[in-house]
Amino acid sequence: MIILGIDPGIAIVGWGVIDYNLTKFNTLAYGSIQTPKEMKTEQRLAEIYKSLGEIIDRYHPECMAVEELFFNTNITTGIRVSEARGVILLCGEQKGLKIFEYTPLQVKQAVVGYGRAEKKQVITMVTKLLGLRAAPKPDDTADALSIAVCHAHSGCSRLADFYNK
Amino acid sequence: MIILGIDPGIAIVGWGVIDYNLTKFNTLAYGSIQTPKEMKTEQRLAEIYKSLGEIIDRYHPECMAVEELFFNTNITTGIRVSEARGVILLCGEQKGLKIFEYTPLQVKQAVVGYGRAEKKQVITMVTKLLGLRAAPKPDDTADALSIAVCHAHSGCSRLADFYNK
Repeated sequence: MIILGIDPGIAIVGWGVIDYNLTKFNTLAYGSIQTPKEMKTEQRLAEIYKSLGEIIDRYHPECMAVEELFFNTNITTGIRVSEARGVILLCGEQKGLKIFEYTPLQVKQAVVGYGRAEKKQVITMVTKLLGLRAAPKPDDTADALSIAVCHAHSGCSRLADFYNK
Repeated sequence: MIILGIDPGIAIVGWGVIDYNLTKFNTLAYGSIQTPKEMKTEQRLAEIYKSLGEIIDRYHPECMAVEELFFNTNITTGIRVSEARGVILLCGEQKGLKIFEYTPLQVKQAVVGYGRAEKKQVITMVTKLLGLRAAPKPDDTADALSIAVCHAHSGCSRLADFYNK
């Protein structure tokens, strides 16, 4: 099962594509889509949509796992990230991917084994699990791979849920 | 100048198209895009994107005026509305429209003359200004027309700003 993990953002969208086969991971590609803050919001959104579409066309994932937004103190940032998230969900839907959403707590739980894990622990663990030489940069990319791993770990049962809906 | 006004939402997107010529308004069309809550978020977003694209293709507006989001107590609703807003901005950008954003305060100021006006006053005023027989329903549609009128009233100077950027 080829999984595309996404850590949504307006300045940086982290992405990672893994192939999960029973208990084995194969990391196909990862990176980040970055848009400069001088660009207008609508242009940044169009850039994210285009780049994400190209990634999907290149790696043909069956599903997309996206981090659920969780609002901290900065509402304005939250609005902009949600706008980008909308564009990401749209792109996945138009490309025919099955879409799954996970909270940061679920991701930590799935990767490290407990929901209160530090960000650094999650990155170390996902780097080890995927057999990478070094932690992917920026952190958004590592986060995207963690989300893909989270889906791999809980994906089979959720995929069944999906088809039974 | 043909203006498309948009009141963003996930369940209801209000829209209105007006033609503004010096001081005269001509209302071309208005309505709402509605998506059922039983639909998955990504499907609702795809429906909004498709319907909005069709409206733009039919009426050829030069610009889109969109209400800026303003968060009240319900953060979850705010996230979903922002996701829809992202898709709306994307669609406008891809269709080559110039995009302008207005706060509810600016809209009230432009339509009624003061920023603390009641919602009902704004609807009554926009119905009168556009010479409509009755207030457009649902309120989201009336709001979208108000946003278009707001842009018409402040549009010329802002359009100049746009080209001088």
